[in-house]
Amino acid sequence: VSVRDEKNEAKTGKMWGGRFAVSLDPAIHRFTTSLPFDQRLARYDLLGSLAHARMLFERGVLARDAAAPILDGLAGMLRDVESGSLAVSGDDEDVHSWIERVLGERIGEPARRLHTARSRNDQTAVALRLYVRDAILRCHRAASSLAQVWLEQAAEHTETLLPGYTHLQRAQPVTLAHHLLAHFWSLRADNERLEAAYARAGTSPLGAGALAGTPHPIDPARTAALLGLPRVFPNSMWAVADRDYVVETAFACALLLVHLSRFAEEVVLWTSAEVGFAKLADRVAKGSSLMPQKKNPEPAELLRGKSARTIGDLTALLTLLKGLPLTYNSDLQEDKEAIFDALDTCEASLRAAAVLAGGLELDVAKMRAALHGGFLTATDLADGLVVRGVPFRTAHEQAGAAVQMAERRGLELWELPLDELRVACPRADEDLLGALSPEASLRSRRSPGGAAPAQVREQLELARAALDKGLRFSAEQRPSPIRLAFEQGRLLDEEIV
Amino acid sequence: VSVRDEKNEAKTGKMWGGRFAVSLDPAIHRFTTSLPFDQRLARYDLLGSLAHARMLFERGVLARDAAAPILDGLAGMLRDVESGSLAVSGDDEDVHSWIERVLGERIGEPARRLHTARSRNDQTAVALRLYVRDAILRCHRAASSLAQVWLEQAAEHTETLLPGYTHLQRAQPVTLAHHLLAHFWSLRADNERLEAAYARAGTSPLGAGALAGTPHPIDPARTAALLGLPRVFPNSMWAVADRDYVVETAFACALLLVHLSRFAEEVVLWTSAEVGFAKLADRVAKGSSLMPQKKNPEPAELLRGKSARTIGDLTALLTLLKGLPLTYNSDLQEDKEAIFDALDTCEASLRAAAVLAGGLELDVAKMRAALHGGFLTATDLADGLVVRGVPFRTAHEQAGAAVQMAERRGLELWELPLDELRVACPRADEDLLGALSPEASLRSRRSPGGAAPAQVREQLELARAALDKGLRFSAEQRPSPIRLAFEQGRLLDEEIV
Amino acid sequence: VSVRDEKNEAKTGKMWGGRFAVSLDPAIHRFTTSLPFDQRLARYDLLGSLAHARMLFERGVLARDAAAPILDGLAGMLRDVESGSLAVSGDDEDVHSWIERVLGERIGEPARRLHTARSRNDQTAVALRLYVRDAILRCHRAASSLAQVWLEQAAEHTETLLPGYTHLQRAQPVTLAHHLLAHFWSLRADNERLEAAYARAGTSPLGAGALAGTPHPIDPARTAALLGLPRVFPNSMWAVADRDYVVETAFACALLLVHLSRFAEEVVLWTSAEVGFAKLADRVAKGSSLMPQKKNPEPAELLRGKSARTIGDLTALLTLLKGLPLTYNSDLQEDKEAIFDALDTCEASLRAAAVLAGGLELDVAKMRAALHGGFLTATDLADGLVVRGVPFRTAHEQAGAAVQMAERRGLELWELPLDELRVACPRADEDLLGALSPEASLRSRRSPGGAAPAQVREQLELARAALDKGLRFSAEQRPSPIRLAFEQGRLLDEEIV
Amino acid sequence: VSVRDEKNEAKTGKMWGGRFAVSLDPAIHRFTTSLPFDQRLARYDLLGSLAHARMLFERGVLARDAAAPILDGLAGMLRDVESGSLAVSGDDEDVHSWIERVLGERIGEPARRLHTARSRNDQTAVALRLYVRDAILRCHRAASSLAQVWLEQAAEHTETLLPGYTHLQRAQPVTLAHHLLAHFWSLRADNERLEAAYARAGTSPLGAGALAGTPHPIDPARTAALLGLPRVFPNSMWAVADRDYVVETAFACALLLVHLSRFAEEVVLWTSAEVGFAKLADRVAKGSSLMPQKKNPEPAELLRGKSARTIGDLTALLTLLKGLPLTYNSDLQEDKEAIFDALDTCEASLRAAAVLAGGLELDVAKMRAALHGGFLTATDLADGLVVRGVPFRTAHEQAGAAVQMAERRGLELWELPLDELRVACPRADEDLLGALSPEASLRSRRSPGGAAPAQVREQLELARAALDKGLRFSAEQRPSPIRLAFEQGRLLDEEIV
Repeated sequence: VSVRDEKNEAKTGKMWGGRFAVSLDPAIHRFTTSLPFDQRLARYDLLGSLAHARMLFERGVLARDAAAPILDGLAGMLRDVESGSLAVSGDDEDVHSWIERVLGERIGEPARRLHTARSRNDQTAVALRLYVRDAILRCHRAASSLAQVWLEQAAEHTETLLPGYTHLQRAQPVTLAHHLLAHFWSLRADNERLEAAYARAGTSPLGAGALAGTPHPIDPARTAALLGLPRVFPNSMWAVADRDYVVETAFACALLLVHLSRFAEEVVLWTSAEVGFAKLADRVAKGSSLMPQKKNPEPAELLRGKSARTIGDLTALLTLLKGLPLTYNSDLQEDKEAIFDALDTCEASLRAAAVLAGGLELDVAKMRAALHGGFLTATDLADGLVVRGVPFRTAHEQAGAAVQMAERRGLELWELPLDELRVACPRADEDLLGALSPEASLRSRRSPGGAAPAQVREQLELARAALDKGLRFSAEQRPSPIRLAFEQGRLLDEEIV
Repeated sequence: VSVRDEKNEAKTGKMWGGRFAVSLDPAIHRFTTSLPFDQRLARYDLLGSLAHARMLFERGVLARDAAAPILDGLAGMLRDVESGSLAVSGDDEDVHSWIERVLGERIGEPARRLHTARSRNDQTAVALRLYVRDAILRCHRAASSLAQVWLEQAAEHTETLLPGYTHLQRAQPVTLAHHLLAHFWSLRADNERLEAAYARAGTSPLGAGALAGTPHPIDPARTAALLGLPRVFPNSMWAVADRDYVVETAFACALLLVHLSRFAEEVVLWTSAEVGFAKLADRVAKGSSLMPQKKNPEPAELLRGKSARTIGDLTALLTLLKGLPLTYNSDLQEDKEAIFDALDTCEASLRAAAVLAGGLELDVAKMRAALHGGFLTATDLADGLVVRGVPFRTAHEQAGAAVQMAERRGLELWELPLDELRVACPRADEDLLGALSPEASLRSRRSPGGAAPAQVREQLELARAALDKGLRFSAEQRPSPIRLAFEQGRLLDEEIV
Repeated sequence: VSVRDEKNEAKTGKMWGGRFAVSLDPAIHRFTTSLPFDQRLARYDLLGSLAHARMLFERGVLARDAAAPILDGLAGMLRDVESGSLAVSGDDEDVHSWIERVLGERIGEPARRLHTARSRNDQTAVALRLYVRDAILRCHRAASSLAQVWLEQAAEHTETLLPGYTHLQRAQPVTLAHHLLAHFWSLRADNERLEAAYARAGTSPLGAGALAGTPHPIDPARTAALLGLPRVFPNSMWAVADRDYVVETAFACALLLVHLSRFAEEVVLWTSAEVGFAKLADRVAKGSSLMPQKKNPEPAELLRGKSARTIGDLTALLTLLKGLPLTYNSDLQEDKEAIFDALDTCEASLRAAAVLAGGLELDVAKMRAALHGGFLTATDLADGLVVRGVPFRTAHEQAGAAVQMAERRGLELWELPLDELRVACPRADEDLLGALSPEASLRSRRSPGGAAPAQVREQLELARAALDKGLRFSAEQRPSPIRLAFEQGRLLDEEIV
Repeated sequence: VSVRDEKNEAKTGKMWGGRFAVSLDPAIHRFTTSLPFDQRLARYDLLGSLAHARMLFERGVLARDAAAPILDGLAGMLRDVESGSLAVSGDDEDVHSWIERVLGERIGEPARRLHTARSRNDQTAVALRLYVRDAILRCHRAASSLAQVWLEQAAEHTETLLPGYTHLQRAQPVTLAHHLLAHFWSLRADNERLEAAYARAGTSPLGAGALAGTPHPIDPARTAALLGLPRVFPNSMWAVADRDYVVETAFACALLLVHLSRFAEEVVLWTSAEVGFAKLADRVAKGSSLMPQKKNPEPAELLRGKSARTIGDLTALLTLLKGLPLTYNSDLQEDKEAIFDALDTCEASLRAAAVLAGGLELDVAKMRAALHGGFLTATDLADGLVVRGVPFRTAHEQAGAAVQMAERRGLELWELPLDELRVACPRADEDLLGALSPEASLRSRRSPGGAAPAQVREQLELARAALDKGLRFSAEQRPSPIRLAFEQGRLLDEEIV
């Protein structure tokens, strides 16, 4: 074993090997390298490294003559990566090794001091947490955009009647606004879950080292603050073993996609010839390579399908973690592609859904027409009988009988002659008959949260306030102190707060 | 169609049928009935019904002469169900039909007025929400109990050394307290997720009707308050279609079980002949039907396996919801068995884990012995060289060379003669050599969150505070106003707050 | 430790404990006992035990005076279990312990010799394999019944026209027979997978002991033959660790359920007011507790939802096995509830689907009407132009233009005046115009496997042959030799072949 | 709408649009394009297109003057794609559109005739089937290679003793060969499943058109034969809707990876300091960026983790298909990335596992040493007592008592003085004592499939035969007739068989 010269530069991108006589089998290298996918983390690792180096400098672990070239070198790399003039490439085992290698090529010996008081275990985790938080914010904003489309459409359609469905059977008259707002509230809950995942990812693991902390006088709270992370790890072993922030994020994405799949299913249904509640604008539909007459709701179908993918990502992540002993195990390397995919899918799907929602050409006449012939106000008949003293169960049975009568006669409920109606419903009267039109039915649904236009307008206000809350949340997330210091070129000497 | 007599009692447990000429095929009945599993909801549906009836009475929808027997009848049923003197049975299609049928048998005609202004869609959802919240609380408490076991063990072992592992390879000395606390923090996050799921389940859907609200002058905020639910649905269509509270709860259970599986894996490892860090007390181990010498960690293995089950439950629930159009669809009936199973598994696993953790007979001598021979302080050597001015990468290489040297010589790192060590590490000195024992290494890990005993004692305080926060949360959840009124027998005339 | 008297009877249902001073914690007992669910295996374990005892007797390991009471006692228990006069109950840790305990209570000392040369590891596995094979056969037969319903409906509807859909958009005319047969072929593949899983489960593990075989002169091939299992384990460690037969079966169930969910989705669509291709007979539909007019396709929705459950079961099983070292681990105990649920769900869903399919009241007039207005024969126009020398891409564009023209004019394609059509499609002629009716289009789809009635009739023959093949498979599975010997009361002295 | 000139070339890669006024929204285009991932299908689509064109020519649907340039142009593209001189690029919506566009650029008008009598629905499916079959074969071969490594190691270690484990507790002595062969048999079953999936994928959908077949006189059996596919679709609707071949393949991959995860877990355990049954060669291990002494089994950990990924892929695929009505829906586009990932992971993992298995430096002394101190022959004692007339249960208890005695005395079972042993086991004798060494125990496990060396040598012969069967299967899969004709440059005029 030769003692290496302290000035000797790292020649490969491997951060270890002092004890290894033979180099890695190429097939094993290909199998274990994460560079093809973790290169996405380059920007985040560079920010993490900047914060780490700055803290080491502040704490006196790195002298000025090492800290200056390191901060300068990392900043240069970050600039070049963001401008596109520096691309991740090479045979390194991961993006962290690549960064250290390139830094060494650029600044020489000081680069060999950067890894002081950290390990790849905490280094990777902090980069991934920063990445996840950024991507969550993008999803959150995209969700707000989609919510806004729905709110605008809802505002226009507080008086547009269509059937509400249960079991895909026409049930009772509702308004289009009410229907769209039902989707809105699910998406609002999705954004709350994204906010919770964002908070979960906001615990900095930097300073945990491999698993036990470090003897160097570091300040993990300082690196956390520099990186804009509100909390710091309580336990170094936990810090390198924990992936809750990844799994929670994947879950938030999966449930969000499930909600989009429900909307997408309705787009597919509504644009079918059979339902016809909407047509797709040409800009959101596709044609057939064979059938010239086709106009297919492919974006909606794909949206529906994408939910399966994120459910798969979540399953993979939970299964991955199952049965792993403490602390870091290389299985965790598999967390990245799954969470990248879940977040990519989430953001792209939200953007597509917003365009798709905006490309729906609604056919309110068809909607209104669908209120006829299905006896959608039979419940109103029962409810009216209740008001007139009939027990609900009995009223339900009488209304059922009235439906059969109307069906046989080919009439709407409200078209039944009163005396005939009274055969089935002895307590029926003219007022009750008048309450059986779809419009009257809808107006009567005045209970809080109900489908009546007045209630829906109140609900719209609530929805706007909820949306605003979400918008404020994302607006409040600011670039981190280290990022601002980088942008303003004051990484070394000035105070960073 | 015969007009039914208003006095006519419901003879079957079916809440509908006025329009149906033929009764359900027996195979279809068996396939669609939920009574075999939703009977668990009986207590919760009775509470929901009490709140509904009370509100209807307060709002004048139910007159006193109907409300009194209904409230009385429901209270009697609840008492009998809880005492075990009334068992759910029969051929009803679900527990809601069973309750209405039995109520009818007990109080006659007024029972037919109970379903006024509600549908099974909102009725089922509120009962399931109440059930889920109760079960979450049980899980939350069981998690606190397990946490307490770990905290107590940690308090005893702040000076007990053992190797910390990465990649199941001995890495650096840590204390047993630090190791156990790593599990603690994961479980604390689990309880935070359970709290979030509890809050999510706290939105009352009662009053949404089938999907559109109701013309009756109901007060959904009042039923919510009576049931101890802090929020009320904003949109009636959303209220009957949403199952986020189920999926979020299942997710919290699955991730919790994954954490338990990591602990369980360690119990299996630690009690193996090869590791030997612990033996299992007889009360938590099982033997072999064939091999008389065996003592098997079956509870730990089963705990590990149970995680798979809850991942399956979560997958099922997300898949179930995928692509469903608004609003209620019978697919949702499948939510129950999955969430029951996830919550049952979660609670039982937590209770078993607490007993298992308490049944670990730790072998601290074996733990300490495992610190030898693996060069676990090589990082300390590198860190010490860094302090002496060597760049970390170079120090890492030199320490690697020192490891090879010690390995060849069959010595511990700290047993190497200084002059020999200096061949690999020119800047090494006596002080550095003295820093290479496991004890010295451990004491040096003084960074915040690190493994040094002093840091771990601070961490213990944080952990106790976190546990207390959890205990306060569960202590603050009180019986609902309607429950208290039921217990105090003042359901009708006195004010309920 | 007291030396036990050889005559001493086991007093508890525990098969071990010689080395244990303290008995199991009650919470751990509840957590680890499998009796509540593995009691389903009682019949299969008794058969396995009969075969084991008979083989031991044949090989001289059990003397006649032990073998006779054992065989007799086991046969009595099997009779009583099947007649219902003996129910599994008690505090035993599993059904195997229960059987041995009850046998001991019935026949005394010889019962203590039954476990010679086996372990619960191979004992459980063989019982589960027998159970799985039986349940697979039930599913296979239920699938054939459903297939038969579809074939009968197809035979009636080889000339019934309806639109074929892609993207839920009307695409081209097909026949109802063709549509139903598409589902048939998927189900046929499901039965092939069930047959493969049946074969996979047909390897006997009995004789593997705990993991290493046994010194007793046993004959695993003989027990396999007695149990009707065609193959015997090649490796004793593999035999107790393998659960491929469980996972493969769960997969076959899950994919089958996914196929049923596709059919179910169509039932939901077809019975909606909007599509109206079918109505549900009263015996397969359900009503609403609130809305008297409703007729809900609940069995179809539930069928759709059940697929999620089996996907969850499969996920659980795969996740369960992940990362388990050889050989048997108690995690495997979790295989049972998942596979029981998958098989139960599969069989019940198939039976419900057959009743549901038979309860569809098809509305062929609505189907035919749906062929109009959607330009479903535009492809025929393009194809006709191709025959007339136009390149397909050009023909596709011209046909697209013709569709726009017809749409503007409010005409069907075949109603366009030829000279107008020729503006879009210069090579169109009278013959081509005549080929554009739905009927003509359908008749033209004469390519093999195509939708033309003649082709569909040929396909029906293929389908009948495929169904017959499946029926032959299940008919060929006969009771095992040990089962027949049991039924004929000749377990001890006569030859069993 | 302008009538397009028949000579007009397609300018974009879109195969439709005649009816669309506005082009696709860019966000929707990005969301829906499959080109970034389905470009892998280029070679397979070109082969499918060659077969289609050749068949159209044989059937007279394409005249020679169209067929010649088409076949020539496709062959040129295939050559260029395979040589790397033609890369998939551009803005096309999928690889099929790209191929038709490039073909058009190369050969002009005849390219517009290629899509005659097919749709992208059958075109995509046939390309994916061909891809899947190719990739399955690669996995199958890689599995055979890994199996071979195990067989070779087993052949060397038929006499190498180590403990067999249940519950990760030492159970009974086995040989290393027996242990390795247990993994072999699981992998053999995996290859059988891959063969079944290969067969499932061998049904050609080409000729199904969009969903209804075609009026052109095509010959689907001929295209199937040209492509080496042994079967042809029975039903055109089924052909474009079915994805069983994808799901079955994903399942085979997932279960295979689960098996690899079990082997990987053992590599992690065996190379731990605690077990020490093996060391990793430097070429298959990795080091630590922080801890110089570490040698981590990262390839094994990653292998274990990869199983989670394929379980996720399978879950995604099943969930994707759930609830889709007939026939083709764009959700199916999501099948590709999941199955590509599953197959990539499967092949790469198998190759890595083979290198890893070969890089295990086994420590047979450690293995042998692990046989001591754990009373692994207690079962032999019990079995010996049974031979001497003691009922097994009693023998089990006595052996348990002997274990406790030996434990207290600090002796191995076979070191106990006979008179002391007889206190626990009255019928013990010298012969029995002599049977209690690990070697004697192992030799006694002579039952078929047992661990005794003689049995294991027989098993090795079975395993070699099974491996040969697999090798023959993959060797028998030959290039398809169209591929051979392409390679021999005789696509147009000569007979292709």
